[in-house]
Amino acid sequence: MIGRLNHVGIATPSIERSAALYRDVLGACRIHPTVIVPDQGVAACFIDLPNTQLELIEPYGPDSPLTSFLSRHPLGGQHHLCFEVADLRAAVAELQRRGFDLLGQGVPRIGAHGWPIVFLHPRTMNGGLTELMEQPKRPAEP
Amino acid sequence: MIGRLNHVGIATPSIERSAALYRDVLGACRIHPTVIVPDQGVAACFIDLPNTQLELIEPYGPDSPLTSFLSRHPLGGQHHLCFEVADLRAAVAELQRRGFDLLGQGVPRIGAHGWPIVFLHPRTMNGGLTELMEQPKRPAEP
Repeated sequence: MIGRLNHVGIATPSIERSAALYRDVLGACRIHPTVIVPDQGVAACFIDLPNTQLELIEPYGPDSPLTSFLSRHPLGGQHHLCFEVADLRAAVAELQRRGFDLLGQGVPRIGAHGWPIVFLHPRTMNGGLTELMEQPKRPAEP
Repeated sequence: MIGRLNHVGIATPSIERSAALYRDVLGACRIHPTVIVPDQGVAACFIDLPNTQLELIEPYGPDSPLTSFLSRHPLGGQHHLCFEVADLRAAVAELQRRGFDLLGQGVPRIGAHGWPIVFLHPRTMNGGLTELMEQPKRPAEP
């Protein structure tokens, strides 16, 4: 079912400051422009690593689900893992059959990369918020 | 400075149960035998993904640093990110010069993969525990 680790989501109170950390101190090679994902209540900034990406996310709008995360983790922190799957609808059906908790009843939305995604609740995923993303139909990202 | 994401560390109260989740439900292709890392007070089990690895870790011994993490996160959860660096000693010197908090005074230890590692404290790393690992001198892992 799961393929590549598409990205690691990292919550931050400030994409600007976190991007500076990864760029200026850690020397990350490519930092993409920040995009707004209103549907998820976040601003997102992808950072390329040679084999995967980091996704810096900060709250956007009054009802951002990140607000409560940052109230518990004011410095930010690891927020989710995103795995690619070849067939998202088949993956959702299989996980629902097995009793996994999918957010939004498992109805795919369009994620920050422009491809369908669903989130699995941490309670059935080893305590970690987990995103599944339809495998992009384009050349592989770094 | 940072290169590949070598692995994502995931704390769990039971490697056996978490490995079953990744193997039987999520279909992860290869799960390595569990190894004990007494120096770090953990048992570790690597899971190969096509582009990186997950590292399941559970407490080992009475003084495991994971015990307090799991008391706060009983289901487990994302614990650290491990980035490869070409020259670990140079990276440590640069980070210390910039005032970053390195655990164990930045003296490299041998990690679960058998290569030197250091950990950066979350307080200067966007809230996330961060491992730096000397880039392996061998064929790239998946």
